[in-house]
Amino acid sequence: MSKPKGFEKPAGVRDYLPRAVTKLRKIENDVLHCMSRWGYRQMITPTLEYYDTVGVASSTSDQKLYKLLNNRGQALVLRSEMTAPVARVVSSLLKDEPLPLRLSYHANVFRAIEEEAGREAEFFQTGVELVGDDSPEADAEVVALAIASLEAAGVKSFKIAIGHVGFLDGLFQEAVSGLPEAQEELKSHLLGRDYVAFRETLRRLELSEAQKKELDGLLRLRGGKEICGQALELSSHPLARASIEHLCKVWEVLVAYGVSQHVLIDLTMIGDFSYYTGMTFEGYASELGFPVCSGGRYDNLLQQFGRPIPSTGFSLKTNRILDGVSGVTEEEELPILVQYDALRRQEGLAEAARLRNDGHAVVTRLAAGPEELKVVKRLDADTVEAEGERYGEIYTFVSFVSEHG
Amino acid sequence: MSKPKGFEKPAGVRDYLPRAVTKLRKIENDVLHCMSRWGYRQMITPTLEYYDTVGVASSTSDQKLYKLLNNRGQALVLRSEMTAPVARVVSSLLKDEPLPLRLSYHANVFRAIEEEAGREAEFFQTGVELVGDDSPEADAEVVALAIASLEAAGVKSFKIAIGHVGFLDGLFQEAVSGLPEAQEELKSHLLGRDYVAFRETLRRLELSEAQKKELDGLLRLRGGKEICGQALELSSHPLARASIEHLCKVWEVLVAYGVSQHVLIDLTMIGDFSYYTGMTFEGYASELGFPVCSGGRYDNLLQQFGRPIPSTGFSLKTNRILDGVSGVTEEEELPILVQYDALRRQEGLAEAARLRNDGHAVVTRLAAGPEELKVVKRLDADTVEAEGERYGEIYTFVSFVSEHG
Repeated sequence: MSKPKGFEKPAGVRDYLPRAVTKLRKIENDVLHCMSRWGYRQMITPTLEYYDTVGVASSTSDQKLYKLLNNRGQALVLRSEMTAPVARVVSSLLKDEPLPLRLSYHANVFRAIEEEAGREAEFFQTGVELVGDDSPEADAEVVALAIASLEAAGVKSFKIAIGHVGFLDGLFQEAVSGLPEAQEELKSHLLGRDYVAFRETLRRLELSEAQKKELDGLLRLRGGKEICGQALELSSHPLARASIEHLCKVWEVLVAYGVSQHVLIDLTMIGDFSYYTGMTFEGYASELGFPVCSGGRYDNLLQQFGRPIPSTGFSLKTNRILDGVSGVTEEEELPILVQYDALRRQEGLAEAARLRNDGHAVVTRLAAGPEELKVVKRLDADTVEAEGERYGEIYTFVSFVSEHG
Repeated sequence: MSKPKGFEKPAGVRDYLPRAVTKLRKIENDVLHCMSRWGYRQMITPTLEYYDTVGVASSTSDQKLYKLLNNRGQALVLRSEMTAPVARVVSSLLKDEPLPLRLSYHANVFRAIEEEAGREAEFFQTGVELVGDDSPEADAEVVALAIASLEAAGVKSFKIAIGHVGFLDGLFQEAVSGLPEAQEELKSHLLGRDYVAFRETLRRLELSEAQKKELDGLLRLRGGKEICGQALELSSHPLARASIEHLCKVWEVLVAYGVSQHVLIDLTMIGDFSYYTGMTFEGYASELGFPVCSGGRYDNLLQQFGRPIPSTGFSLKTNRILDGVSGVTEEEELPILVQYDALRRQEGLAEAARLRNDGHAVVTRLAAGPEELKVVKRLDADTVEAEGERYGEIYTFVSFVSEHG
């Protein structure tokens, strides 16, 4: 293993240069502002958490957690997501606050990666948790807020797919009961959205034709409101039926929000977080091939921190929006250059202060003599060039006679 | 060692509840906005860096670095400050950019701490680097910007103490040459601002009376511009004199900026970063007993990353400003509550959307029947109470007849 070169950084992490930061900060601010208008109040939690508490409770598989020891010999993790840390705070500092709690965050999270994976080891998530409300109203609120957040982030065209963990669980209990390995295999194909492999596994299994038909029918349960009716026909399992009835109510509320045109029902969807217990959803931007947000209900997570209350939430995959979405670039204003000599320094700096007070970006520069003055060339109304550097305007305060002044 | 309880977090890290986040975010935004008006463009670098590059180059002592291994077996650190990471980027991604470069950041940094220390293991810094300019003009610019940043952060009353590493080095080379241990001891007393111990060490040393007088005289070199003259009288060492002459020029530029009333010269000051090579400075808020910002010139750091250019910069100790400065609190606007029943849901949600578009924070709530409607009580023009919860206003959309509607 060779020593890293001086200017190298670890695999999977990135530097954000000013242009990217401007775009990222705009997404962050616009989305957090949107969330605050929905009554969600921002929290910040530490980067480091205990492995035994937040690390174990998080949805991230153990080998993807960055682990380290502190000076006391305790196992720590770099947070891998924000739902478990927020659950910890809800169960401690916020334990006496009236419910429901509406909380938001923008945070960097970490995933230890395989060398070959080429995945990001540190990235940003912007999200909310709605704590202490198990109603369809609450599930619909976070979906509607996810839609508002994607719009605030500048994502022009997208769809939210909603599903329900309970429907799949009920269906599998009914059709593949007593075959836990088969259940796992079928679920993993759904998680990978590999319907061909799903059907192949189905063919191999020793199930009745009715059971196979039921499971195969699952794959068609993607569409609009009509899917709820089809799902109720497909399964008579109480858990599956209760889940669908819940989802129908969520849909109704989304119609009242006036956002159902963004939503489709996809009962083949398995949330990628192990702690989901109810409705789950994912957002897809039409410009991108992967989800830009994901969320769902997790009614059992908070009891791990000693406060058993239901919760639901989502997070935007902020980096994917930053990298993939074209709509949010903004032309940066070029700075004004104020150049001066030592004799007129005070005058030049006062002018710079005045321009800054007016909201302009200003850089200042001492020119010791005429030969150090920047040669100025006007390019257009908004741009002046000085020896290859571009400025919005150049002001010169010198006492010597300048050729270019 | 006992297992941490479910809701515990590691020592030295903290949760920021919404009220603190609002204050922290205001400081962050106001300071970064101030820096951008001075032409400084914001960067974000990764939390994880190589130990062998940024870890070693940073000013943080080795035992205070959080270290971990990645999957490749490489030693990583959690960044302990931002100057070394920015230097890495200046030497790589920004290596072809014209100088000077003006860069800013707001970042969390990490210090592994002793169990008993009670210090913060993760905290925020907001700062700038001015890269590629070794003039007094550049040093004065970062001091003037530090002053503007403290004002932007809401710090009402403060002083900036400026010193120079070269003056102390010259003085010690002259007066205690050949006694490296004595130099170290005297410097550590200065760093701890323990002038009694400094004088005691001086008494013990086998030095001439002239040498002792010179070193003792150092302790009086704290004040205004007149200190420059006194310092020139005290030492004839070329490095010490050149350093003072540089500092005089910095002072002149600060006068031109109109900020010298905030500045004092303190030649006993030792910058707390090992990489400082020239002027150093610290800012003290009158409300607080410890520095709220620190900075200085580091002309040798960038060559460690392969690009030998001079630089100067500073960072605000953002957490100390957050915790210690009273001037920046803001009353948060209470959210508006919109409550509705299922029949008038659409109307209620439309009203909520309208209010959000107008910039209000709004929470919504379904009341299934009259008994679930919140009992409303007006407290004053801006506050309505509903069963212990406070709102700015409450709108009710129900079809049933309400006692309180």
